Amino acid sequence: SASKIHGDQMAFMDFPFVSSSHRDLMVDLVSTVETRLDSFLNPCGLPPDVQSYQNETGTAHAALHLRSGVQSSPIDFILGSWLHCKLPSGGALNITSLSAYLNSSTDAPNFLVELIQSSPTSMVLILDLPPRVDIVLDPDYLNTFYEDTQLDQHRQHLDKLSEVKPYYSSSLYIRSVVSPTAILVRIETEQLEEMIKTHVSPIAKEMLKTWLDVCAFGDRVVGESERVYLKKRDDMSKSKTIEIDLGSSLPRLFGQETANRVLEALREVF
Amino acid sequence: SASKIHGDQMAFMDFPFVSSSHRDLMVDLVSTVETRLDSFLNPCGLPPDVQSYQNETGTAHAALHLRSGVQSSPIDFILGSWLHCKLPSGGALNITSLSAYLNSSTDAPNFLVELIQSSPTSMVLILDLPPRVDIVLDPDYLNTFYEDTQLDQHRQHLDKLSEVKPYYSSSLYIRSVVSPTAILVRIETEQLEEMIKTHVSPIAKEMLKTWLDVCAFGDRVVGESERVYLKKRDDMSKSKTIEIDLGSSLPRLFGQETANRVLEALREVF
Repeated sequence: SASKIHGDQMAFMDFPFVSSSHRDLMVDLVSTVETRLDSFLNPCGLPPDVQSYQNETGTAHAALHLRSGVQSSPIDFILGSWLHCKLPSGGALNITSLSAYLNSSTDAPNFLVELIQSSPTSMVLILDLPPRVDIVLDPDYLNTFYEDTQLDQHRQHLDKLSEVKPYYSSSLYIRSVVSPTAILVRIETEQLEEMIKTHVSPIAKEMLKTWLDVCAFGDRVVGESERVYLKKRDDMSKSKTIEIDLGSSLPRLFGQETANRVLEALREVF
Repeated sequence: SASKIHGDQMAFMDFPFVSSSHRDLMVDLVSTVETRLDSFLNPCGLPPDVQSYQNETGTAHAALHLRSGVQSSPIDFILGSWLHCKLPSGGALNITSLSAYLNSSTDAPNFLVELIQSSPTSMVLILDLPPRVDIVLDPDYLNTFYEDTQLDQHRQHLDKLSEVKPYYSSSLYIRSVVSPTAILVRIETEQLEEMIKTHVSPIAKEMLKTWLDVCAFGDRVVGESERVYLKKRDDMSKSKTIEIDLGSSLPRLFGQETANRVLEALREVF
């Protein structure tokens, strides 16, 4: 239980605050990425007090797992995280995420999965391969990574379920970053465990497999001139994403000192 | 009635096949654009048999209204259209649209409204100011045209109505062209006339007003180097849009000869 481990170091891979099907899914996704990308990844170099941290009163806990790519690899970094915080209402907010960013040796899409649970019966799911070029200018990119991979079938599958409703991020920038096949949904059901096991898990694993096969191992290289553009776009997208995701919530949840420590450690890659 | 005017030239502004509230809305939007942009626009130069055409059996009718911008204006062109065709089921499909494209003297967004009615109780509404730059690279653009104008409030208003559901275009390219505040919805109700009058009309008029004030008359000029990029992006977006919208449906509905005549006339601006 939370109280038992309160004060101890809570490991990223433990996902100690979420349901078993939620935890199983996250462990599976992180393990799959780390196994397939193994030779491409440096060890996690975050300080222990950034790998796992909490607020003074012990009502908010979080863990981070960051591995940068080795020089010759197409990987920029992978970042896993979880966050748990008690809500004034008596419930708790639990967020778990895994993102994988490629570097400018390739223009293939990144990978992103995020599960945001604010009640036992409601969850927001974000699952996408965000594009790294302006698709309007590059229909071939759309064909290669989104049409030929049939990514939209996963979104369509969830769309047919009565428990699933579209979710709109309050950030217009986040809405702009995602792909045209992005899964952005709110799931409302008494059987959330079952829903994760039956529908969310198979889709998330399938989309990660597509990303690994077609993007991380796609051997799609780009020229020197395009790399400058990619780096500029990636840098903007990363800095805006971290600002929107963490800029205001980290200080509020963990205090300014911890927030500074965490953001400083992330600035290495963001 | 349709039979009375069958065979005659049906004028674009008559919108002869749609309900009165649908027609009133389209006439209002087209009139507003033409009044505000009057000195910027050349007369419609389409041949009469492209301004209005039909198929051999008289089951499909369409009209087009195209006015290009004068040299010194920020307007590329405005294009209005309607399409009516009898369905094998006994019903009819009615599509009306108005789009306004700016030229590369400015990078401000375009305007687009399309109402697609395939039954007396169901309508798809597309209403947007599609961006003309890659928003991921340009958060200031997002602030200027989408945050500061509070465009998302209109989408949110419709989203709250039980008769309104999100609509996903089957074309991933069209999904990529629209803005993060785009209204893409399906409206299902027995009171479609009332719904257009009470909810769709005020929002469409308000969004057109925003487009006219902030985009068409925004005096946002761009440098020479950016114009090359804008022209390339606009050209790609226009040619893909016309290919997706008309490429296969025009020959199917009106025969190859008429389709060629219409596409040839539109190629002047697309």
